[in-house]
This record gives sequence, C-alpha cells and structure tokens, in this order.
Amino acid sequence: MQCPMPKIDFDIITLAHGSGGLLTNKLLEYGVFDLLKNEELDKHHDGATLELNGKIAFSTDSFVISPVFFPGGDIGELAINGTVNDIAMCGAIPQYLSLSFILEEGLSMQEFWNILVSIKFAAEKSGVKIVTGDTKVVDKGKGDKIFINTTGIGKMHPKANISLQNIKAGDQIIVSDQIATHGIAILSVRQGLEFETTIESDTRNLNDMTLKLLDEFGDKIKLFRDPTRGGVAATLNEIARDANLGIELLESKIPVDVQVKAACEILGLDPLYTANEGVFMAIVAPEIADNVVSILHQFEEAQYASIIGEVVGEHNGQVLINNAMGGKRVVHMPIGEQLPRIC
Amino acid sequence: MQCPMPKIDFDIITLAHGSGGLLTNKLLEYGVFDLLKNEELDKHHDGATLELNGKIAFSTDSFVISPVFFPGGDIGELAINGTVNDIAMCGAIPQYLSLSFILEEGLSMQEFWNILVSIKFAAEKSGVKIVTGDTKVVDKGKGDKIFINTTGIGKMHPKANISLQNIKAGDQIIVSDQIATHGIAILSVRQGLEFETTIESDTRNLNDMTLKLLDEFGDKIKLFRDPTRGGVAATLNEIARDANLGIELLESKIPVDVQVKAACEILGLDPLYTANEGVFMAIVAPEIADNVVSILHQFEEAQYASIIGEVVGEHNGQVLINNAMGGKRVVHMPIGEQLPRIC
Repeated sequence: MQCPMPKIDFDIITLAHGSGGLLTNKLLEYGVFDLLKNEELDKHHDGATLELNGKIAFSTDSFVISPVFFPGGDIGELAINGTVNDIAMCGAIPQYLSLSFILEEGLSMQEFWNILVSIKFAAEKSGVKIVTGDTKVVDKGKGDKIFINTTGIGKMHPKANISLQNIKAGDQIIVSDQIATHGIAILSVRQGLEFETTIESDTRNLNDMTLKLLDEFGDKIKLFRDPTRGGVAATLNEIARDANLGIELLESKIPVDVQVKAACEILGLDPLYTANEGVFMAIVAPEIADNVVSILHQFEEAQYASIIGEVVGEHNGQVLINNAMGGKRVVHMPIGEQLPRIC
Repeated sequence: MQCPMPKIDFDIITLAHGSGGLLTNKLLEYGVFDLLKNEELDKHHDGATLELNGKIAFSTDSFVISPVFFPGGDIGELAINGTVNDIAMCGAIPQYLSLSFILEEGLSMQEFWNILVSIKFAAEKSGVKIVTGDTKVVDKGKGDKIFINTTGIGKMHPKANISLQNIKAGDQIIVSDQIATHGIAILSVRQGLEFETTIESDTRNLNDMTLKLLDEFGDKIKLFRDPTRGGVAATLNEIARDANLGIELLESKIPVDVQVKAACEILGLDPLYTANEGVFMAIVAPEIADNVVSILHQFEEAQYASIIGEVVGEHNGQVLINNAMGGKRVVHMPIGEQLPRIC
C-alpha cells in the first residue's frame, strides 16, 4: 500500500478547497483524480455516464466513524467496503461507486491522502470503479475531520432471487465469521484498552463470497444481510418482523473471538448487539446449509462460518436464543445506541 | 406544502437515533418512510433493486449549506434539485435518488420534518423517486444541524450527445435565467441585509427544460452545465480549459436582476463568480441558438434566457468578456472561496 503523496503546495485543507475554484481543482487534480484515475473520472463532468442493462442494485451510506483511523482500517476503506457490501447483500455484483467528501477545515493533507490511498486499494480489491464524486469543506468545529458518502450501483447476479418473501420455516441461518470484532476494535481504541494482541476491525469486502454462493446455489439463497450497526440482534429482529416468522439461535454456535468475548465481558457489552463490518448472514434452504458453510470455509475471511440457528413458524416476529444450559431468552431489538459513530 | 408532522414521542434527534436500533426504526417509520412512501423504500432493504436499460448518468453531491433554511428554499429542496440537475446536465432523464442524512445531535424533529417535506415535494416536482437511504447521527458540535447527500441515476435521453468534444468555434453560449441570485440570497440572510423585496434563492429543477431542448434539438446541444459553486466564471473556465477553446462573453447580454446587481455592488461581489442553483448554461450549434432561447422563454423559470457569448478558435483556454464601452478583460478562474457553504 505504498502511494507517496505528490508535492502539493498546501498541508492543510481550508474552506477555499471547497469553493469550486482553482484550489478545488488543485486538490482534485493532484490528489483525487490522479490517484483514482479511470476513464469516467477523467471526463471531469459532474456526473458519470455508464452502460448498464437490466436489473440493478443501488445503495448509499454515509460514514462518520470516530476515530477515522483505527486498528485494521480507516474511514476510507470502510466507506468502500460498506457500500460494496450493501450491494452484495442485494445479490448484485458491485460495479460503480460515487464518492463524496465533507472535509472539516484544518484536516491535514497527509491524513486526507492516507484515506484516499485506502479508498483506492479497497476499490481495487472489491473490483469497483469510482466514477463520480464531490468535495465540500465545512468550517472548523462544524464537522469532524472527514465524513464520506459512497453510493453504489451493481448488476444483479443472474441467479439471485434475494427476498424476505422467500424465507420459510426450516431455513437455516448462517453467519460468515466471528462477530462483534469491529465494534470492539473501535471501542478499544476509543477507551485506550490494551489486549495481548490488538483487536482489529474486520472491515473487508464480502462480494467475493456472496457471488460464489449465488453461482453455486442461486435462489436457494433466500437472504443476505450484513449485521453492521445494532449487530446480529438488530438485523435478525428486522428479518423476523418483516418476514413475520420466528427465529431461534443456538448460543454455542455463534462464533466470537476469545479476546473479543473477554472485552465484551469487561465492557458489559453483548456481542449480539455489537457492530460488524466484515461479516454477513445468509438465510438459506435447509438442504444446502452444510454446503454453504463448506464453501465459506474455503475463504480466508470465513474460517469461522457456522450455522447459528433457524427460522421457525412460531413466536413470529421474535428472536429467541437457546443457551448451553438449556435456557431460552428473547433477543430484543436494541433500543438506543450502544456505540455511537461506529461506521 | 402542508404535511403536518405525525405524533412522535421525541422532539430532538439524539445519538440513539443513529444506532440502527429501535429509535432509528421509529424515526424512519414515523418520519422518513411514511412521508416518502414508495414501493422500493417499503422493502426496507439496505439497497434498492431497480430495472434499468442501456446508457445511464450517475451523479452525487453532498449539501452543507448554512443556514439550512433560507429565502426561497431549504437544504432538503436544494439536495433534491442539485442532484436532479447534475443528472439533467449529463443529458439524462433523472429517475432514482438515494438520500443520506448526517444529523447533528440536538436537531429538532420539527426542523428535520420540515426538511423532509421539502424533499418530498421537490422529488415529486422533478419526477424522481427516492429509493434508498441512510441516516447517521453525530455528536453535538461535530456537525452543523444537517448535511445531506443525494446520489442520482437517470436514463440517457435517446437523442442526447452531450460532450466537450463536440464543441466547436462558433457555438453559442446560452444562459437560462438571471444569474447570481442564489449566492446573494444566502449572503443576504447571513449578513442580515434587507432589500425592498427579499432576494430568494433560485433553487429549482432544470430537467423539464433540458429534456425539452434535447427533444427538439438532439445532438445540436453540445453541452449543458449548471454554474453552481464558483458561478458562471468557474464553469466557463473549466469548459475553455477542458475543450481547449476560447470563450468570448458580452457583458451587456448577461441577465442579472437589478436588486441582485445592487447587492453585488454593495458587497463587492462579481455576479459572474456568484453561485447559482436554478440556472443552466447550454453550448449549442449556432443555427439553433435563437430557437433555443425562444423555447426557453416558454418556461416561467427561463424568462431571461439569453445568448451571452460564443466559443472562439483563439486565446484557447481563456474566457474574455467584452463590456459595453468596448473594453475587453479576462475572466479568470476563481481562486478561493467567495462564499463558503453556499450549497
């Protein structure tokens, strides 16, 4: 990830860099356009012109994470992966992204550059092209270093038929990796907690895995969701409510890293409610569930993929969890904010 | 524009409304989803699934205007019109928008509601559907009430062939209405200036006009651009530079409202450098220029449409202006920020 910053005759972003004038041009020419170079961006129009056919997915996210640099990533990488993953969760192949910055006056050009480089590599890794963008600057104290919006377009996978309506009792719930890692990584750095090894955010693109599963299993994949804000608990509660079905989880099957688990205990957090960035859940027909897990295990980022529960035809709208001692409790929808500005 | 706010058991946006939990859901269910209701949004997925064919335009903008309510509009209306217009400037028919909020903790629900209502009506007026979105909340003092990103997709007009490459010496430069109004409206309210009548922002959708011109004249329309930040001067300088041609303007032909002109004089601002929101420029083949102006005059929002200059084969990259006394001067690219946070 070596991309030295070009010589730019300013070190600090000022309000003038958001003016639409010479300084905006300078920032874009020496920074953004050069680094993210491609045919569409080179046109320097306010919008990109693209060729697309048939069914597409379209998704947006604004990223306001604090701090902007954290163990395992930064806001730039997160902003690419987050929208790539939302498109992937629709059953689509992420193709094009827009990229919009709200910079706080006083941001150092070096920090902005480092974020741009992360953006470049994350976009390359997930196979998307950044084709249009925007840069605004707000006065010092009216922002927080940098906020990023990315909005993505993807072509629907030809075999995909992702829909809540397809979910039935008996369908299996799979999680692709250990949960709660991103939330704990961010909280650790905010609180200055130290562990034996640093807990790193799991931010990554998930589209390689979801597309492989769609190639193999088509419409037997009923739903993909990435449990970001609100964690697994919020996502499964939304599914149970919107599909009007029940969900039963097996606590012992839910993969959590031992250090993350320890951190959760110290901090009084429940991993089920803690944010993820590099994990997705799949709800799949029962006959393919074991195969889905086997295929996921072929990916380095899904070594801990596991069937964690199933959809049931009772207690509709509710998520229950069975613990190792035979107890059962309701996993409620989170009410407020466990960890603000986690993404 | 009557849409009473529904009964919501909170008056103030808090960090918890950005959590992805119950309070986020409440905000979306009672506020956003109900007001902006449509088939795609009703699916409550992280992304929208859309049918699109062929060539499309894709554009993004983040809006950080201060103050968020101003004479003639608010940030919500501006955010819809801004992206609709960027799509229109590509020669496309705006169809779908994403909508992403960064709210500052402490924003009143009433203000947010008023902005949402503006969004609804602006989207209806310009014929676009808001199909996906995102809401984040940042701590008090880390934002400024509300920032909005909109990103749009539009189908290319079948007759459009908008491109800098098509511009030739002799092509005529048309402006659709009086310039500098938006910038002066914002500055007046910031500075507490009073005029005989209030100067109102010209924020509006421009796609009705651009599509009508494409219907009529197809590829004789070489370029559309809306001169927002940096005004007419920045936009024409970009065109002269990127097309490597010269531009000559006639000062006497550039329409400016008399009050706006007076305000510019008092404030020491040049209307050419002042931001617009409801004005576009068209560069067109000379044989259609008068007809373009006649058609524009049929629209209420383009009563002052006028040919303001032409493209020339000399002083390439430079914009010159001829004044009434026979003088000629260079219109430089603006360097820094005349009016920060104008959109």
